[in-house]
Amino acid sequence: MRKIKPSMKERRKRVLQALKGLGEKIYTQIEKGKFPWIEMPSRSTDNIYYDPELRQYILGDKKIRRSAGNIRHIASFTKLVWTAFFVRELTRERKTSTLRDLYYSAQAYEMSFKDQAESDNIITDLETVIGHAREDFNVFPEERSAVFGDLTIEYNVPGYEGKRLNLTSHPDGVMIGPALTSADFVRTSADKVIAIEKGGLFTRFIEEQVYRKFNAILVLTAGQAPRATRAFIHRLNTELELPVYIFTDGDPWGMHIAMVIISGSANAAHLRDLTTPDAVWSGVWATDIVNYKLPSDKLTDVDIKRLHELARDPRYKGELWQREIKTFMKIKKKAEQEAFSRYGLTYIVDEYLPAKLEGEA
Amino acid sequence: MRKIKPSMKERRKRVLQALKGLGEKIYTQIEKGKFPWIEMPSRSTDNIYYDPELRQYILGDKKIRRSAGNIRHIASFTKLVWTAFFVRELTRERKTSTLRDLYYSAQAYEMSFKDQAESDNIITDLETVIGHAREDFNVFPEERSAVFGDLTIEYNVPGYEGKRLNLTSHPDGVMIGPALTSADFVRTSADKVIAIEKGGLFTRFIEEQVYRKFNAILVLTAGQAPRATRAFIHRLNTELELPVYIFTDGDPWGMHIAMVIISGSANAAHLRDLTTPDAVWSGVWATDIVNYKLPSDKLTDVDIKRLHELARDPRYKGELWQREIKTFMKIKKKAEQEAFSRYGLTYIVDEYLPAKLEGEA
Repeated sequence: MRKIKPSMKERRKRVLQALKGLGEKIYTQIEKGKFPWIEMPSRSTDNIYYDPELRQYILGDKKIRRSAGNIRHIASFTKLVWTAFFVRELTRERKTSTLRDLYYSAQAYEMSFKDQAESDNIITDLETVIGHAREDFNVFPEERSAVFGDLTIEYNVPGYEGKRLNLTSHPDGVMIGPALTSADFVRTSADKVIAIEKGGLFTRFIEEQVYRKFNAILVLTAGQAPRATRAFIHRLNTELELPVYIFTDGDPWGMHIAMVIISGSANAAHLRDLTTPDAVWSGVWATDIVNYKLPSDKLTDVDIKRLHELARDPRYKGELWQREIKTFMKIKKKAEQEAFSRYGLTYIVDEYLPAKLEGEA
Repeated sequence: MRKIKPSMKERRKRVLQALKGLGEKIYTQIEKGKFPWIEMPSRSTDNIYYDPELRQYILGDKKIRRSAGNIRHIASFTKLVWTAFFVRELTRERKTSTLRDLYYSAQAYEMSFKDQAESDNIITDLETVIGHAREDFNVFPEERSAVFGDLTIEYNVPGYEGKRLNLTSHPDGVMIGPALTSADFVRTSADKVIAIEKGGLFTRFIEEQVYRKFNAILVLTAGQAPRATRAFIHRLNTELELPVYIFTDGDPWGMHIAMVIISGSANAAHLRDLTTPDAVWSGVWATDIVNYKLPSDKLTDVDIKRLHELARDPRYKGELWQREIKTFMKIKKKAEQEAFSRYGLTYIVDEYLPAKLEGEA
């Protein structure tokens, strides 16, 4: 047995110092009456070399400079400074963000990126400037299918018989694999299940303690829910008698993720216990896009074709579905879950979620 | 607080009874001097209906019959019976398999499926016959990026400060997300790290107690390792001073998964602490395909083009890499990790892994 001393707290401190240092440099330049500028190694192909000693690629000596005094630089300079500000807040408050969230978050500051490629690129710039990976300043990519909440399970797999785990044990969420799928439910204090399409939002809900504030078990579907996940949701609903609320992107594909959890797919017509007919699709609705003035994209031809298919699908006969399909067709827009970040990262938890759960209760 | 009584053991019993019942029916038919046959609901489109009461799709009354007395049925009848036999063993021994493993496992019985589409289809037939989802008889799809092994971590995320988790707590593996990425290492008894490309093999290694038998921390890369996962492997190697062994598919893409863990990518040239230069690519090598007579596929034109690129890549200068690239080009074949299942599910753990770890030690 070896004992390892703590070091991640130290790393966080160093990142915060680097970000503060960047800010101080800019302030100093302004105080001296200069247009502020930032210098960083160039990431262009002709400045990337393989270092046989480090055994990895490295950047060469070429530098680029972004200056507020250059009309061609001012936009990207400003975006870089904002991004540094934003991730410093994240890191200080120990919250995380996805790349996608960050892209939308900028809009809360009336400063928008052309597309996510641009914001991803600025993040990479910032990594270059401060010499830390974005994970160190709490910006993560998408995660995977998992569950989190106050539910104690008992394993049935070899070596774990009789062992129990509470599903709040690991705050990244507990993976839904063979062992969890085959576990028994022992006890829960939860009174509802919230299923979520996207990993970033799932992590957000854990961080914001949705499981505690709303007494909920959170399930990440990670896009179209794998069958084991649909079976798990079915068990939560039937064995624990918990109502299920589903949150997806606001587009025909998100709708259908909810529908497959609720009513299953044609491919599984020969099976039972995979559906949760009483589960409720709580959003993002087409009417939410209108009511919450969400940032949105135009529906594509493929989206519209899909809506026409869904309109004819027997599973979509209900009033809610028909209304939302009609609204999508009328507004010709779609919106992702992360679009709520335009009102701040916690808006979706503080405002949208309670309104939705009340509306559906 | 509600208390839920156990029920998953019961379900396992019912599946085993259903499989046994199927076998008994066939024996009885044979004893009566009849060609055995199996009847099941048809899954063709014209027999799929939406049931508004159940609120899901169901199969109609049309049946199909597979008979050993019909020359056109005999192959699929035999494959169905073998599959029932195979999954009964799985379920009795409480092991799991992926769909891909099952496809290869058939070869151990000198009975081969045309392609995975065929074996997947037979599995669906079996689900239809016995009325249980394949998860109930332990056949799962691929899983995701995760870690498992005797390593105790201490969280640094809000609400979890000072809390510790041992990474053997959840036998599906512990997800590598923000909370794990930011956790400190407290102690471990492991003396090595084994990184694995595929989810099915990762689960296999847990089930076969590789972490105990080989004193290893297991990391699932789930294809190309996400950056947080590469950073995590780097920390295991540097903070805990553990050697790292990487197992991937035997093709240029698997090779490159290993290489990106070892030497990083051009995209991350401006960053440090993402690479593990001393990590070893342990297989599946091109020479393994030859030495272990693995089931293999022909290299495609795209594969060969990729090999030519790798041959010129500075990261691939080492003797091992050049030898394997040349062997791939010579044999013009590739093999997946699951290919070892042709020698039985545990062969890869009992024979291949110890040989490889010894060879590299």
